[in-house]
Amino acid sequence: MKRSGIITLLTDFGLADPYVAMMKGVVLSINRSADLIDITHNIRAGSVSQGSEILNGTWPCFPEGTVHAAVVDPGVGSERRPVAVKAAGHFFVGPDNGIFWPVIKTHPDAVIVELTEKRYFLPDVSNTFHGRDVFAPVAAHISLGIEINRLGPTIIDPEKLKQPHPCQKDGILSGQITRIDNFGNLITNIPANTLKDFLGDKRPVIHIDRYKIPELCRTYSDKHDGELTALVNSSSYLEIAVNRGKASEYLGMSPDEIIGISVRIDRKN
Amino acid sequence: MKRSGIITLLTDFGLADPYVAMMKGVVLSINRSADLIDITHNIRAGSVSQGSEILNGTWPCFPEGTVHAAVVDPGVGSERRPVAVKAAGHFFVGPDNGIFWPVIKTHPDAVIVELTEKRYFLPDVSNTFHGRDVFAPVAAHISLGIEINRLGPTIIDPEKLKQPHPCQKDGILSGQITRIDNFGNLITNIPANTLKDFLGDKRPVIHIDRYKIPELCRTYSDKHDGELTALVNSSSYLEIAVNRGKASEYLGMSPDEIIGISVRIDRKN
Amino acid sequence: MKRSGIITLLTDFGLADPYVAMMKGVVLSINRSADLIDITHNIRAGSVSQGSEILNGTWPCFPEGTVHAAVVDPGVGSERRPVAVKAAGHFFVGPDNGIFWPVIKTHPDAVIVELTEKRYFLPDVSNTFHGRDVFAPVAAHISLGIEINRLGPTIIDPEKLKQPHPCQKDGILSGQITRIDNFGNLITNIPANTLKDFLGDKRPVIHIDRYKIPELCRTYSDKHDGELTALVNSSSYLEIAVNRGKASEYLGMSPDEIIGISVRIDRKN
Repeated sequence: MKRSGIITLLTDFGLADPYVAMMKGVVLSINRSADLIDITHNIRAGSVSQGSEILNGTWPCFPEGTVHAAVVDPGVGSERRPVAVKAAGHFFVGPDNGIFWPVIKTHPDAVIVELTEKRYFLPDVSNTFHGRDVFAPVAAHISLGIEINRLGPTIIDPEKLKQPHPCQKDGILSGQITRIDNFGNLITNIPANTLKDFLGDKRPVIHIDRYKIPELCRTYSDKHDGELTALVNSSSYLEIAVNRGKASEYLGMSPDEIIGISVRIDRKN
Repeated sequence: MKRSGIITLLTDFGLADPYVAMMKGVVLSINRSADLIDITHNIRAGSVSQGSEILNGTWPCFPEGTVHAAVVDPGVGSERRPVAVKAAGHFFVGPDNGIFWPVIKTHPDAVIVELTEKRYFLPDVSNTFHGRDVFAPVAAHISLGIEINRLGPTIIDPEKLKQPHPCQKDGILSGQITRIDNFGNLITNIPANTLKDFLGDKRPVIHIDRYKIPELCRTYSDKHDGELTALVNSSSYLEIAVNRGKASEYLGMSPDEIIGISVRIDRKN
Repeated sequence: MKRSGIITLLTDFGLADPYVAMMKGVVLSINRSADLIDITHNIRAGSVSQGSEILNGTWPCFPEGTVHAAVVDPGVGSERRPVAVKAAGHFFVGPDNGIFWPVIKTHPDAVIVELTEKRYFLPDVSNTFHGRDVFAPVAAHISLGIEINRLGPTIIDPEKLKQPHPCQKDGILSGQITRIDNFGNLITNIPANTLKDFLGDKRPVIHIDRYKIPELCRTYSDKHDGELTALVNSSSYLEIAVNRGKASEYLGMSPDEIIGISVRIDRKN
């Protein structure tokens, strides 16, 4: 498989500390012509599920042969395994803590190896920063063309990630808000397809908190400024929004709040 | 016109969500050797005027043949037109909502086209994320050398942007604070040239809030620590600052406050 | 000396203003093939000591021949000298205000020049933004291969930086917290070697605020969630942490608080 020469980075390191730049320096010391693209470094500290969700929505936008280093690694230095994954022509490097589970689950032919070949690490591996000492150098070596089966033995029992799934019962489709974005939009875990199958040719009523939204819109500005609305977003999930406002503020939600959402069929149509 | 291969990005997407990285992945899938430079992604959500001001001060620093993708797009998916602009040897891609008005206004020979040729978009265009589906791929194609008149028909009625201009009346030059920067400096909309014409060889007294500043300094450290001062900044606008302090805090300003400023001629000189 | 073509940037400009992008545009206008890597732009405004500490821990991760532009420059436009430094095969460009002191101090063969050759600056140098007008163009020229002795005369009296050092007295090793990172970890100024020499084969008791930590751990997850712990971090300094929590919150520290830490030998072993 040809490499794109691109390495993406996703971490919970933030941008004030030098940790991201250290990883980039290590990569460029091994592969001078790698192109480094930040996915985000603002994953909530230690939130494997959030890192996993963002990674899973983003990697398909990149060309085949790209290496994605994802370091949300609260168990660094413990017994958790470092891994590399090859799936759909892309490569993934990071801790085996479930962060790659959505990729692995949807690609039965994914190859997963435990990183044991220390010659692809930095010479001195610290106990607390495998992003710099293990994952950055391994990502750089993969971007240069090394096959992942040379990095260590194949494993078949990767860590799974427990994620809430939408469910359907008594004519109600129930899901959850998984993320509040920069615009205060509430991203749900209800895929457009699931919603479509549930609704058939009927119209929905969406219940969130104490509000009812009686229809799906096409885009934000279909509604008046400040009005609560629901739509299928650009990643094909149900989303709650307020045109030129913030749905999160409209509903008085705090950033880490878990809030349910349900869809019923509008009996009036 | 030769292309520089550089594409700059300016959005109101923030850095926590995956939206910026999605745009970068799309660009690199079309033009693998494009170099992507962030102007900023922290434009206040939906603030076309702020995006416009920052873009207008920044694009001239880049080499000719650079493509600037500016996506502050509260009307995404509505009837607002997607456009590309060619002016001063640079290219601009984004929504026709006034964000490019300062460039267009100052370049009478600017060419503006409406983006209608869907073969330069992603195959499936969402209703809510034209940054990824329209503007990123079009920017990538322009950076590869395509002429903008192949992207759609020329338009001559681009959206204008209403911006407050400084005015002069009864011997008073009045303006506004347009931005508070990271150092708490207050950037005004009074250009150095306007100030110079107003003053001639006289000295100014600058009035802001309940304070009077009796002179222009050359640089911050001309004043004692903590003292309020006024100077012509590096973008050639009048600026209010506090040496080793924050003028915004000195004046007790909240970030989005609109505050006037006026300059009079010092009658004592 | 061969150049790597990489230019790193470290500033206190933040990411909302256009200042960082302006520097990048200037660099790319001079050296189109330079690769720009951000170390951080979130240095506390004007904090030369914080900029210095972060730079000093990060530059060794980059390949030889890299240029590091560090612009924390509260004295911009004053008499403070602009300088370039060559040390350990790396190049440093910025104000002579102590920011490069840790590099210079540890490299007696460092060459330091005052930047006086204006032909390597932008044609018009402002009084308030030497990052764009002096340091970016000089960094670009160095990355193209120019020798630093062509940039101006050698100087031998660079500004020093006053930094608190750990000290040992009456059987107590005392230091300070120098930085709180994104994970709420407290980075101290006590190097692992100093700690080792102090302890010999004895066990430590670490005193911070009103807490005693009776041992050093290997990594965060050696402790239960929420427990206060001490360890040698990935930069080989003593660090105070809380597994899956924030030591800064555990101790109720505000971000800029200066707090002491001391290590004693455990009399029980």
